[in-house]
Amino acid sequence: MKLATYKNNTRDGELMVVSRDLTRCCPAAPLAGTMQQLLDNWQSLAPQLAECNRALNDGEIAGEAFDESRCHSPLPRAYHWADGSAYVNHVELVRRARGAEIPASFWTDPLMYQGGSDDFIGPCDDIVVPEGELGIDFEAEIAVITDDVPMATSAKDAARHIKLLMLVNDVSLRGLIPGELAKGFGFYQSKPASSFSPVAVTPDELNEYWNDTKVHLPLETYYNGELFGKPNAGVDMTFSFGELIAHASRTRNLRAGSIIGSGTVSNKQGTDHGSAIVHGGVGYSCIAEVRMIETIRDGNPTTAFMSANDQVKITMTNPAGQSVFGAINQRVKIIK
Amino acid sequence: MKLATYKNNTRDGELMVVSRDLTRCCPAAPLAGTMQQLLDNWQSLAPQLAECNRALNDGEIAGEAFDESRCHSPLPRAYHWADGSAYVNHVELVRRARGAEIPASFWTDPLMYQGGSDDFIGPCDDIVVPEGELGIDFEAEIAVITDDVPMATSAKDAARHIKLLMLVNDVSLRGLIPGELAKGFGFYQSKPASSFSPVAVTPDELNEYWNDTKVHLPLETYYNGELFGKPNAGVDMTFSFGELIAHASRTRNLRAGSIIGSGTVSNKQGTDHGSAIVHGGVGYSCIAEVRMIETIRDGNPTTAFMSANDQVKITMTNPAGQSVFGAINQRVKIIK
Repeated sequence: MKLATYKNNTRDGELMVVSRDLTRCCPAAPLAGTMQQLLDNWQSLAPQLAECNRALNDGEIAGEAFDESRCHSPLPRAYHWADGSAYVNHVELVRRARGAEIPASFWTDPLMYQGGSDDFIGPCDDIVVPEGELGIDFEAEIAVITDDVPMATSAKDAARHIKLLMLVNDVSLRGLIPGELAKGFGFYQSKPASSFSPVAVTPDELNEYWNDTKVHLPLETYYNGELFGKPNAGVDMTFSFGELIAHASRTRNLRAGSIIGSGTVSNKQGTDHGSAIVHGGVGYSCIAEVRMIETIRDGNPTTAFMSANDQVKITMTNPAGQSVFGAINQRVKIIK
Repeated sequence: MKLATYKNNTRDGELMVVSRDLTRCCPAAPLAGTMQQLLDNWQSLAPQLAECNRALNDGEIAGEAFDESRCHSPLPRAYHWADGSAYVNHVELVRRARGAEIPASFWTDPLMYQGGSDDFIGPCDDIVVPEGELGIDFEAEIAVITDDVPMATSAKDAARHIKLLMLVNDVSLRGLIPGELAKGFGFYQSKPASSFSPVAVTPDELNEYWNDTKVHLPLETYYNGELFGKPNAGVDMTFSFGELIAHASRTRNLRAGSIIGSGTVSNKQGTDHGSAIVHGGVGYSCIAEVRMIETIRDGNPTTAFMSANDQVKITMTNPAGQSVFGAINQRVKIIK
């Protein structure tokens, strides 16, 4: 089942069922008016919505043309958005660029921070940030949405709580990160509004590419129209989504509609630090990693962070060449 | 206006208007069924609800007896819960106990972390944590709830976005904090579910004790029935709520229903580290501060953290002797 939220001038938008090929859609109402309503009542509503989904895909429901540009993030606002850092290669690279080793515990104990979830932006909305030397960067990631997860759930049991999958652009203000991390309380101002793919999909839509609670497909990032990265999200993911959920639920319940992110997808590619697209590698999912490579190689970074009007597109294509989630496609807008 | 949320076996509970003396209440429906509905539409609904409030307080509406034990937190779940650390004395004390000075920037740049908001617990609910050497502690605080706050709002402009005030018990697992802070991503597992006072009040209910976006009344904490602290929340608050909101909104919009906390209330009392109730001081709002004093004075702490069945009560009384918010009153329950 594939689901989207159309903007309709309300805070939570209108839940839509979308055809597998992303060409047509129909409202999920009256079964569920919003994504949160569906998640609050997944067990009773999802089977009924699955029948609607079948009818749409079989052509029994004609529906209307699906338009990604009308989409909000599948959850325009959420009660919980926690982002892990499951691709430890990304973390190692960031540290190594400043001459530091990562602690051994980073390979067994996930990093996770809690992000702003009251004001997600749509997948085609501008990335709006105030002016200043903020170091604007994208981070291409995968995220899952859970139902109610009880405290102290194991990684194995966590798998069945994963109801939907999405792509994420976890926008980061690199210029603010060192100062915030030095304060010890983690990210806050350095993480402005995130956006998610137009479409959220149930795990079964990925067929064999959803395995071991990992997505085994390349995550494609285009920067100003050029392919920037296509690392496989199933490779070098040190912590699976099941393990990330187990970490998140150690001392708390996660309630329906909790979003858990993978962190920036990053492949080592059998090298020390991965390799760029222009060098024949699978590239990167954020500008920071390229700058790290440049720093390690040349002593200082040369690739700039994003400026006004710079564009990032994040998408995932299955081996049949079909877009799975639709595309996050955003430009930077600076407000004064 | 005073508002509460009664538990009714739904995720968001039932919004109630509560009389000023906390003796009677009536449903806010049909104007607003839930607190979030009210906050989503504050501008149109609050004036109508204020008329209901007047009628209740004037006895035109008899209502029913108000029962704090039926309350959930005013927002049983919220889209944003960010907790500042506005009483820098608290931070200084924690650092000094381990021989470290705080950076000068801590007096001008607020500490703030984002907490779990999808699963608040009620003011009289048990504090449920898994077993282990977790160092369970309470933190007595004040919090505000905002309406929609645009990005880059000034501290001065922030004041008018403060719609409601509450008390908080920001439960902390001290045993997990050093490890999490060392990882650099801030608190996550070390901050289990928070609870808020039975009643949320509009700032005008505090009369002259709400000034400069600070609450100028003592915050009382009782631990296992004994007065543990009564610091004045208006004293030594380095950052006002207006300043905390300005910090929070620097790079993001805050959407209606955002909760911003003060951090642990702490008074210096003209001393280096404050003074306990038994020594004639105003005491403390968390166990950690007492342990810090003991460490500084004796070399090691002697007061234990909370164990199963330990009880904490947090309340605030106005000079007329009336409870303003009702009481948070919780016991620790360990699950195995």
